Amino acid sequence: MNFKAVFYLLGRLLFICAAFLLIPPAVSFYYHESELIFYFFAASCAALILGAVFMIQCSAAKDDMLGLKDGFLLVTMTWLFLSFFGAIPFYLSGYFPHFIDAFFESVSGFTTTGASILNNIEILPKGILFWRSFTHWIGGMGIIVLAVAILPQLSIGGMQLLKNETPGPTFQQLKPRIRQTALSLWKIYILFSVLQVFMTHLFGMSLFDSLCHMFGTMGTGGFSTRNASLGYYSPQLQMIVSFFMFLAGMNFVVHYFYLKGDFKKLIHDSEWKFYVVILAVNILIIALCLILRLDYSAARAFRVSLFQVLSITTTTGFATDDFNIWPGLAIGILFMLMFVGGCSGSTSGGIKQVRWLLLLKRARQSITQHIFPQAVVSVKLNQHPVSENVLQGVSSFLLIYLMIFAGCTGILLGYNIDGLTSMSAVLACLSNVGPGFGLVGPTSNYAFLPALIKFVLSLCMIIGRLEVFTVLVLFFPSTWRR
Amino acid sequence: MNFKAVFYLLGRLLFICAAFLLIPPAVSFYYHESELIFYFFAASCAALILGAVFMIQCSAAKDDMLGLKDGFLLVTMTWLFLSFFGAIPFYLSGYFPHFIDAFFESVSGFTTTGASILNNIEILPKGILFWRSFTHWIGGMGIIVLAVAILPQLSIGGMQLLKNETPGPTFQQLKPRIRQTALSLWKIYILFSVLQVFMTHLFGMSLFDSLCHMFGTMGTGGFSTRNASLGYYSPQLQMIVSFFMFLAGMNFVVHYFYLKGDFKKLIHDSEWKFYVVILAVNILIIALCLILRLDYSAARAFRVSLFQVLSITTTTGFATDDFNIWPGLAIGILFMLMFVGGCSGSTSGGIKQVRWLLLLKRARQSITQHIFPQAVVSVKLNQHPVSENVLQGVSSFLLIYLMIFAGCTGILLGYNIDGLTSMSAVLACLSNVGPGFGLVGPTSNYAFLPALIKFVLSLCMIIGRLEVFTVLVLFFPSTWRR
Repeated sequence: MNFKAVFYLLGRLLFICAAFLLIPPAVSFYYHESELIFYFFAASCAALILGAVFMIQCSAAKDDMLGLKDGFLLVTMTWLFLSFFGAIPFYLSGYFPHFIDAFFESVSGFTTTGASILNNIEILPKGILFWRSFTHWIGGMGIIVLAVAILPQLSIGGMQLLKNETPGPTFQQLKPRIRQTALSLWKIYILFSVLQVFMTHLFGMSLFDSLCHMFGTMGTGGFSTRNASLGYYSPQLQMIVSFFMFLAGMNFVVHYFYLKGDFKKLIHDSEWKFYVVILAVNILIIALCLILRLDYSAARAFRVSLFQVLSITTTTGFATDDFNIWPGLAIGILFMLMFVGGCSGSTSGGIKQVRWLLLLKRARQSITQHIFPQAVVSVKLNQHPVSENVLQGVSSFLLIYLMIFAGCTGILLGYNIDGLTSMSAVLACLSNVGPGFGLVGPTSNYAFLPALIKFVLSLCMIIGRLEVFTVLVLFFPSTWRR
Repeated sequence: MNFKAVFYLLGRLLFICAAFLLIPPAVSFYYHESELIFYFFAASCAALILGAVFMIQCSAAKDDMLGLKDGFLLVTMTWLFLSFFGAIPFYLSGYFPHFIDAFFESVSGFTTTGASILNNIEILPKGILFWRSFTHWIGGMGIIVLAVAILPQLSIGGMQLLKNETPGPTFQQLKPRIRQTALSLWKIYILFSVLQVFMTHLFGMSLFDSLCHMFGTMGTGGFSTRNASLGYYSPQLQMIVSFFMFLAGMNFVVHYFYLKGDFKKLIHDSEWKFYVVILAVNILIIALCLILRLDYSAARAFRVSLFQVLSITTTTGFATDDFNIWPGLAIGILFMLMFVGGCSGSTSGGIKQVRWLLLLKRARQSITQHIFPQAVVSVKLNQHPVSENVLQGVSSFLLIYLMIFAGCTGILLGYNIDGLTSMSAVLACLSNVGPGFGLVGPTSNYAFLPALIKFVLSLCMIIGRLEVFTVLVLFFPSTWRR
């Protein structure tokens, strides 16, 4: 493990973090929240100083290449440090009772989860509201470069599946390539961001709210500026946000291709088709549920079902309706969709569509092999055969995901928290959704939980965000051995 | 598909079924339940006649060898027909309102599940009580030959893992071998059965109750003759039954070896060690839960925890305490243990210990490969490497199991049944446990469910009992193509 190289790079990332912390003061200045400006500057300075210390202390390693294990450590440390410094203005503002609350909120922001410990967000100063949402957007940018450019090189994440098509260099030689890929995808991210702000503002949302909700949508985060979340706004605005959630849940590499005019990539992308089918089927079932059981009008049922299925599947977590009181089947489906998540290479969390698709294909293959034991059947994705190693990784991913889910649920149950709340709180954090069911439903929050649980859930958010393995390998002694 | 050969053999099995149906009349005769005798004879005659029709009509194929697909069909049909004829005396007795209820109870018996639709079992005539429990014992005998001798030849079931050690002929040539293996294992089954009856009777349980509870224990079924299940009896009796549940949840091949004096096989069997560790850890956690949350005395907490963990893990389903009102963590653990199940080659249901062990080993291997991408790591069981094909089958098994669980839970939720009841009813049937939580907890039953749900749950019991693939392949068109 090359600690010096890791901390040198971490130092550089802290400089970027310090720069980001200088943006909300502009908002606070505009809204005359002078005290807040000072808090943001303080956090920014702290990040700057620690960053400088890291860079000076480790400057000897500034030209070293990172190894595989260094990559795991760097990525995990980045999210932890970002969350720590992001929590400072929250804590100083006085709206968060303990530092763990501010940290939870900040982790929730940077991991684009959207789980909150705040009761009444409408009383918060604009600067805090802006920073809360802005962390989603930063996290989203980070995730895109992580999911598309870095994780596949660490052989983690759904995008490694596309490796066949875009054979790339190893992590050590990748720096210029990462930058180039990241830049192309960030352009798309920013394009969609601008479009969404324009559209929502056009249909009557204030510029400030448009910006904040765009941050939450594009990062598939889910922090809102309203207690009623998107339920506060008109149906038109809800539909616009639905559309952008749909885009944010897609693979950004696919966006890249069709924006370049290559629509075939979109139409022939198995994951995208699977994503659309999963969405359509579940929107339909839930809408029928709402019509039959809660006597919703057809139009309303489809609108709220569309919005909620998109919001949960893309792991955004906005709400337009209290889905906690929906019929059991609808809750069950939303619960399952939290496991599914969005597409690989998107800003969404969860197990990801492509993994489920591969698991299903593989299960079908197993059944075929029971019928014809001699048959040689291989699993294909987008016409390319998928290697046994990748398939094995996907199965293990599912198992480890389920075990973390079960284990952490056990911790919550041990605190005498009811089953639905325990399960959904863990899943909503692990899959970066945000709101769950029961006591952590869309109209309530995570404030009541004991500090230890908040810490466990923060860890879940980071583990889920970094595709499990990245964080998990750090807990294995062999990672630390020379 | 050689239908004639399948139905010829099915005819022979119906003769055996007819013979079994002549045993409870002896009980009814002893207890002067003359009407019942007639019902059992009627069912026996019906089985005999249909069996004769099958054998005569298909006698041309009586020397044909069965192919792979024929094996799947035969095994599934056997359990369906057994359950059908077993339901006839239940239905005729008048204690079951509809035929679906009698069928549910009979399926539950033969699949050694133990889920009941009866409210007050103590008012039932002895003949019915005996037959209910006896179906467990028959099912258990069937499962042993199925799990140890037949399923591995169809490349299904945990026992195929031992194939390396006992290289056997293919299914087509297997008849004499199956008989020999089955006989050895049945001897052990009968030995334990006799021992248990002797022990429980010695400690004060009536001979009739001793017999019935032995049937339920050895078959890991769980039907009792008392409304309070084993809670009716003394702590000593509960401990004796615990011990025999522990034996019934073990692989019968392991019993075979140590009874022959080869204790090494027991001590070096990875699955057995895993089984013991899983049991010990969970008994301890639940006992602590009961001491801390429900103020149980240490002795009582350990006794009920030991009993309940064994009962659920071996998928028996007896109860000595209303575990429905236990703390959330205890319920959560019991719920997870329903997924786990007993050892392969036992009479228990569930996913089985060996599959979990392999999945865990594989997950660790995946993590190692993330740390050292070049390392070649293979999964071993009992010092033998496990083939990629087997591992893939195990992963797919888990996925399909979870999908059936989720899908069927969705059906129950669609009927507006609460989440805990829906999930646990499906899981308790799929894993052949019997009682679940919520409205299907140990002090209640499955009577209130609509007929369609009873049918779905019956199907779950059979799918779970026959290790999923056996039944599932019958739903695939390619099985039926020439």
